[in-house]
Amino acid sequence: MENFRFYVPTDVYFGRDQLTHLAEAVGRYGKKVLLAYGGGSIKRNGLYDQVVAALADFEITELSGIEPNPRIETVRKGVDLCRMHEVDVILAVGGGSTIDCSKVIGAGVYYDGDAWDLVVGKAKVGKVLPIVDILTLAATGSEMNRGAVISNMETNEKLGTGGWEMIPKVSFLDPSNTFTVPEYQTAAGSADIMSHLFENYFKRTTGTDVQDFVSEGLMKAVIKNCPIALKEPDNYDARANLMWASTWALNGLTGSGKKGAWSCHAIEHELSAYYDITHGIGLAILTPRWMAYALNDETVEKFAQYARNVWNVQEAVPMMAARIGIQKTYDYFKACGIPMTLPEVGIDEEKLTLMAEQAVAHSTIATDAYVPMDAVAVEGILRECLSESSFV
Amino acid sequence: MENFRFYVPTDVYFGRDQLTHLAEAVGRYGKKVLLAYGGGSIKRNGLYDQVVAALADFEITELSGIEPNPRIETVRKGVDLCRMHEVDVILAVGGGSTIDCSKVIGAGVYYDGDAWDLVVGKAKVGKVLPIVDILTLAATGSEMNRGAVISNMETNEKLGTGGWEMIPKVSFLDPSNTFTVPEYQTAAGSADIMSHLFENYFKRTTGTDVQDFVSEGLMKAVIKNCPIALKEPDNYDARANLMWASTWALNGLTGSGKKGAWSCHAIEHELSAYYDITHGIGLAILTPRWMAYALNDETVEKFAQYARNVWNVQEAVPMMAARIGIQKTYDYFKACGIPMTLPEVGIDEEKLTLMAEQAVAHSTIATDAYVPMDAVAVEGILRECLSESSFV
Repeated sequence: MENFRFYVPTDVYFGRDQLTHLAEAVGRYGKKVLLAYGGGSIKRNGLYDQVVAALADFEITELSGIEPNPRIETVRKGVDLCRMHEVDVILAVGGGSTIDCSKVIGAGVYYDGDAWDLVVGKAKVGKVLPIVDILTLAATGSEMNRGAVISNMETNEKLGTGGWEMIPKVSFLDPSNTFTVPEYQTAAGSADIMSHLFENYFKRTTGTDVQDFVSEGLMKAVIKNCPIALKEPDNYDARANLMWASTWALNGLTGSGKKGAWSCHAIEHELSAYYDITHGIGLAILTPRWMAYALNDETVEKFAQYARNVWNVQEAVPMMAARIGIQKTYDYFKACGIPMTLPEVGIDEEKLTLMAEQAVAHSTIATDAYVPMDAVAVEGILRECLSESSFV
Repeated sequence: MENFRFYVPTDVYFGRDQLTHLAEAVGRYGKKVLLAYGGGSIKRNGLYDQVVAALADFEITELSGIEPNPRIETVRKGVDLCRMHEVDVILAVGGGSTIDCSKVIGAGVYYDGDAWDLVVGKAKVGKVLPIVDILTLAATGSEMNRGAVISNMETNEKLGTGGWEMIPKVSFLDPSNTFTVPEYQTAAGSADIMSHLFENYFKRTTGTDVQDFVSEGLMKAVIKNCPIALKEPDNYDARANLMWASTWALNGLTGSGKKGAWSCHAIEHELSAYYDITHGIGLAILTPRWMAYALNDETVEKFAQYARNVWNVQEAVPMMAARIGIQKTYDYFKACGIPMTLPEVGIDEEKLTLMAEQAVAHSTIATDAYVPMDAVAVEGILRECLSESSFV
């Protein structure tokens, strides 16, 4: 196990009717609030009205229309609003996109240059306006971590940034706020959670049983509850398990003490940067093909452990057990209704070479991934995604 | 799943050589430090010297001799020292006993009456002096939670208390600080971790897959790594997994969202209160007999799940699978060198009735336990602990 610092001071209110604490929580940081949200689903389901009623005594400025892959233009707009209205605290109501966008707005307010500098790493994230959030989608884990991903469609870049001060101060996690999430987004969010667990699970550091066995448990919770939520959108416990799993998949617990670069996310960010597809769907398509690429004599024991502990595969031969585990992963995503080829989401072979090169350029997967990948390897994985696959 | 608040803002530095951060961490809270520790093992292994060297610029007052079951007299002494020297921050160097004692000292400083009032609940824990700790034993989880247990040998009471402000501000978790922990204490600490997981796992709330599957993962990490640490006391990864598991077994993750009273702890506190035995040993003795008591037609599915997911029991009949799981639990503790009967730790039948009555009086196990227990039931469990047991 590697050394690490674990510091996750988010104050989480989990469950129904927790918005009775909203005014107190936001009020800890001031009276001037930037209310940030996405496309308006919170107006349709009544959450917007609840928030505005709870914050009747506050001075609210609104930033709406935050995109599913939030854009730097929206960040800039948010920074301007915060400065103009001398905002004390940002209340993000939405999924990971809204929270990510709010985090970078919060950092941008304290940065003199263009906020894009904070994304590309030209400037370091320092002070950040306090973030409070009300989560409406179980997916990214942004509600309890210090990361954010922002897109720049002009330059076809989708990049991650982060800082200790970006972690939300208070998060309201009410599973019933996800009852109205459509099937496709529920499945995509679950694939995102699974992918965060995979990225941290398949690493070269050994002696990390706590992290790995906990990850296996979280994977099993998602695998069990996503199909229930798809069938019964208002099943509270299914939604609660997905939501709480999303938070723990990426708040540091499963990744701390392990090192190495993430593989599928590096590739998927290029798919989203060039085609603006749903992040979780891209991850689901890529993951089984990446697993098949990464499976070799050195990694087979870990993939067999995954197959046995997560999918209860009883096969004794490790290589075969591993392949069965990969197949089950593929079949599972498909059964959740996820389109499992690139053409189904509008991506053909035209830009595969370019995206493969960019994935390597924008990350350290060529040296630090679980199994290192050059552009040729990435393109090979992408080509496997052009049609249906079989792994056993 | 029940509603809950999860708020665990401890700043954890995990790994080797993290004491380079000690002066900065303690210095966040002031210059006047109460250095609290136990019987002097930290002087023998060199940790004391490291701490004093790192805090050369600080004004240190010492409180040594904190007992394994820390006593209210020691708390009172600590409160007096803090007041006399106007202490800003308490640095607890030791296991859960030292940290628990420090927490109640920290609360006692801000309370006008006798600190025992804060333990029995006559007064509520409010403000607490900041606690920083350096952990030397993987067991109680006190390093990242808001609870504390204090004993009063005059009244034969061992009781828990807690408060949001009691949670340590910074915890230094260096697994190599546990290399010198003797076999018996290593096994007892592991049994304590396991018991925290059991107490949260076996509850009546349903729909808590995240908590339960994560608990199973943590149990497996302890089961795998404790025997390694017993055989190779300086195996870093084994010690690291035990230490990190101890923290997560009782910082809220496995228990939040579930309700009900703890069973074995309520009974064990009486054993320690009357006979001052090692907490984890008492828990190991009690647990399999309690499991056998709690196993019935309503609970059999959960016990079978435990047997299958934690012990990989393949038996198809749930009741038999459950019994095999209980037997494996018993055999495991025994294989770790734990004396598995009460007479082996100096307890005969003399006070069993009295302790059973007190266990019920000091807790809500008669109504809120997984399977409710009156004094007769508790006495029955205690009597089962007088000799070796078999469960299949």
